Amino acid sequence: MAEVVARDEKFVREWEPREKGLEEFKSGNDFMKVHFVEKFTKPGDEISLYSNGKFVDFCRGPHVPSTGRVKAFKVMSLSGAYWLGDEKNPQLQRIYGTAFFSKKDLDEYLERIEDAKRRDHRRLGRELELFTVSEEVGAGLPLWLPKGATIRRLLEEYILGLEREMGYEHVYTPSLAKVDLYVRSGHWAHYHEDMFPPMDLETEQMVLRPMNCPHHILIYESKLRSYRDLPVRLAELGTMYRYERSGVLSGLSRVRCMTLNDAHIFCSPDQIKEEFSNVMKLVERAYRDLGITKYSYRLSLRDPANKEKYVDNDEMWTLGERVLREALDSLDLPYRESKGDAAFYGPKLDIQLANVMGHEETYSTVQVDFHLPSQFELKYTGADGNPHRPVMIHRAIVSTMERMVSYLIEMYAGAFPLWLSPVQIGLVPISERHLEYAKKVQQQLQNAGLRVELDSRNEKMNAKIRDFTMQKVPYVLVMGDKEAEANAVSVRTRGKGDQGSTPLDEFIARSKKLVDEKSIEL
Amino acid sequence: MAEVVARDEKFVREWEPREKGLEEFKSGNDFMKVHFVEKFTKPGDEISLYSNGKFVDFCRGPHVPSTGRVKAFKVMSLSGAYWLGDEKNPQLQRIYGTAFFSKKDLDEYLERIEDAKRRDHRRLGRELELFTVSEEVGAGLPLWLPKGATIRRLLEEYILGLEREMGYEHVYTPSLAKVDLYVRSGHWAHYHEDMFPPMDLETEQMVLRPMNCPHHILIYESKLRSYRDLPVRLAELGTMYRYERSGVLSGLSRVRCMTLNDAHIFCSPDQIKEEFSNVMKLVERAYRDLGITKYSYRLSLRDPANKEKYVDNDEMWTLGERVLREALDSLDLPYRESKGDAAFYGPKLDIQLANVMGHEETYSTVQVDFHLPSQFELKYTGADGNPHRPVMIHRAIVSTMERMVSYLIEMYAGAFPLWLSPVQIGLVPISERHLEYAKKVQQQLQNAGLRVELDSRNEKMNAKIRDFTMQKVPYVLVMGDKEAEANAVSVRTRGKGDQGSTPLDEFIARSKKLVDEKSIEL
Repeated sequence: MAEVVARDEKFVREWEPREKGLEEFKSGNDFMKVHFVEKFTKPGDEISLYSNGKFVDFCRGPHVPSTGRVKAFKVMSLSGAYWLGDEKNPQLQRIYGTAFFSKKDLDEYLERIEDAKRRDHRRLGRELELFTVSEEVGAGLPLWLPKGATIRRLLEEYILGLEREMGYEHVYTPSLAKVDLYVRSGHWAHYHEDMFPPMDLETEQMVLRPMNCPHHILIYESKLRSYRDLPVRLAELGTMYRYERSGVLSGLSRVRCMTLNDAHIFCSPDQIKEEFSNVMKLVERAYRDLGITKYSYRLSLRDPANKEKYVDNDEMWTLGERVLREALDSLDLPYRESKGDAAFYGPKLDIQLANVMGHEETYSTVQVDFHLPSQFELKYTGADGNPHRPVMIHRAIVSTMERMVSYLIEMYAGAFPLWLSPVQIGLVPISERHLEYAKKVQQQLQNAGLRVELDSRNEKMNAKIRDFTMQKVPYVLVMGDKEAEANAVSVRTRGKGDQGSTPLDEFIARSKKLVDEKSIEL
Repeated sequence: MAEVVARDEKFVREWEPREKGLEEFKSGNDFMKVHFVEKFTKPGDEISLYSNGKFVDFCRGPHVPSTGRVKAFKVMSLSGAYWLGDEKNPQLQRIYGTAFFSKKDLDEYLERIEDAKRRDHRRLGRELELFTVSEEVGAGLPLWLPKGATIRRLLEEYILGLEREMGYEHVYTPSLAKVDLYVRSGHWAHYHEDMFPPMDLETEQMVLRPMNCPHHILIYESKLRSYRDLPVRLAELGTMYRYERSGVLSGLSRVRCMTLNDAHIFCSPDQIKEEFSNVMKLVERAYRDLGITKYSYRLSLRDPANKEKYVDNDEMWTLGERVLREALDSLDLPYRESKGDAAFYGPKLDIQLANVMGHEETYSTVQVDFHLPSQFELKYTGADGNPHRPVMIHRAIVSTMERMVSYLIEMYAGAFPLWLSPVQIGLVPISERHLEYAKKVQQQLQNAGLRVELDSRNEKMNAKIRDFTMQKVPYVLVMGDKEAEANAVSVRTRGKGDQGSTPLDEFIARSKKLVDEKSIEL
């Protein structure tokens, strides 16, 4: 490859009649090109060829003008493959490579890939014993191991508490319903392909829910509502099921069963702006507490070329878009637009997080919905005594527990802030005779509400410290005679090393403060 | 009826050849008796008749010897019904009655029924807005309204906290799995009828889980375990689905989707006794905190006449029974035995709670299981370096959230202890001008972690107090000029009435203490 690049040879594109090309490839016994020409073109077509020196390929392009433009390249991996994926066919060698216009760009890219590997939540999930995937349960259905479950529980408690503070009322609803409910809501018509297959019971056809909105709507309409009751903010850690194709499933980030930090706000049209603004404040607060700093706003609109994918009501779409734009403008939030990313029932504001490779995905979302309230004929009694139709705001702050935890694992490379660490403190008695003191320390730390693990194995001190360090435990406390005598602990802080001896009381007070403050730093 | 009783007429039983009886009933045009004689007997049978004065009935008995024995009776209700339940048939009148040997027994019974009606969790669930059932979601799938959801969340937080203290590790696992998993566990063979129908995906057949054990087993076997790691106590608020027939579904107490306070303890055989004893301590602690005092222990064994319903391994059953009896005896717990109530995989100890009508049902359960560990070939490395098979203890402390909350609603008749009350304190400003002070009080109570509702409607003070009283809110605080001036509140305590004025600080401190102590009394 270096030789070819040094020769700076041109790539020349030529168009040739299909039959001529086929004849040449056949005479050269190039059965693979023959296959593709026959597959992708029809008699009478012209075919596109690129030549580079003596090498001629059937290709649509584009190519760089000449090989000299390739300043930096790297062969990334090799793999065997059967021609057309059929094991009866000859075996091929696949060569994966990448190329950049400069060595610096290539190096940065390679570094990002290394970093991504190091942070990969599937790898860290295994190494830190956060979750596992079992062939016996099924694809896309991770099992949360105790340490991962602790992180999830803390995240759940955190967001539930914040929502209670902000006037949300929590509910629990079952993760399934009659198919008819989704026919009425429009999910069956617009979202059917992403749903699990229905189950036939005696008299009813049930289906696992793909979204929580219809259940919350039924709670809204379970009693008469007056304008004085609005806004009604119903929230739930709602478990839902989506039939993702097996090829796209991955760790915790793409799964088939997920629990969404969901809420639906039922309000009058003139409350939309304030509610929207409160949701945005909640997002910002949660991101700050979780240490998430890189995000951007995307206004997701329907694809005008693909209208059949969406609810058919132009007026409603125009209104929804206007309301969202006004709310965004009044908050002075910078946003970009994306056509084709709306929900089937309305436009939405997505908050996009970039992963370590720079790929953006939606984590939080706010949607203004005029469709479902009309579909379910929702009402409230206005100050005028007449029935009015509420608007629904769908919103998710910290996404699904699965995706947010996968994001946090990668963002922190498994080194979680103290408040989210499954084990906050590892205890290492220097020898057998310090075990008693270590147990006393353990008890005191636990009484203070801290999560502690005592390594009482018959191992060398350094081995124990190393194991806790590999597990990315924030603090490792080493205890020998000196510490036992002074009611102290010798503190090793993650990323900072040995910090010397500290009175136990002081260590406890400092740790509790860091937990309360949700501090990222140790 | 009173006349018939006064006549003290005998009930005389006679056996008569079937054909003779049929002829008599036919000639009397008594087509209903003809129908039942033909349905329940065959040619050549003798049929049983009871006569009382001129009245003759086809009946298997038994009857009281004479009408004079009926000392106290009451017609409970009437209802129309079609003959054989077919609306094309003539209409009948059904008369429901009850009779006792004394007026006192009857009165007690009627009182219990009145009490049961007053406490009925379906009625209180509606009146106190705890949960609702929606035809559109499906039968047996209640939706928890905000107030019911608060009780459930408090119960969940309570039991999770207690379990953490007791060395349980919590996990989250999905509520479904491949059918094959349940074939392996034996659920498919022994429990299939109670499961939801499977769903066919691309390549796998999935089914909603009826129990959580197989998922926890997979977590146990996701890593190598040594004798030093035992006992492994995996706990989860595990959501499961059971296909209860629609006829038995009722409110929160019999549902199709339920969340069990479940755990599985994997231990060595010599740890069974201590683990069993710890579980019993946990049950007693939880019952005490929840105020449950009426319960009894039942040792549930398999039905020897019905062995095909259970795993076929006599040795294992004998061992399981012995272990349970030993544990029970060592704790000196009184228990009775019940044949036919075992799990399909082993015997169990059930803790039975009686409802207001005296009917007993199982709420907590502890099961010693040798079957599933062998079915899944579970292992741990012993001190001898060799693989050993652990034993599994299945246990549920506070039952499913659905059933325990339904029990608590009925036990407390909706008047929950302070720590479980969805709204702990109702605030009533005497007039518009006291609203500001009421809001200040509200803020201070909320800051102290108390759940408060402020009634700011333009209604009379007494109407507001009445509404809070109907909702069984533990404390209603009334605030006028005097209170605002003194930074005090006038306290109305549920069941005790007006308690006079108290400084706000004092009220807060006292309330927090009652919450912390989980006091039943106010």
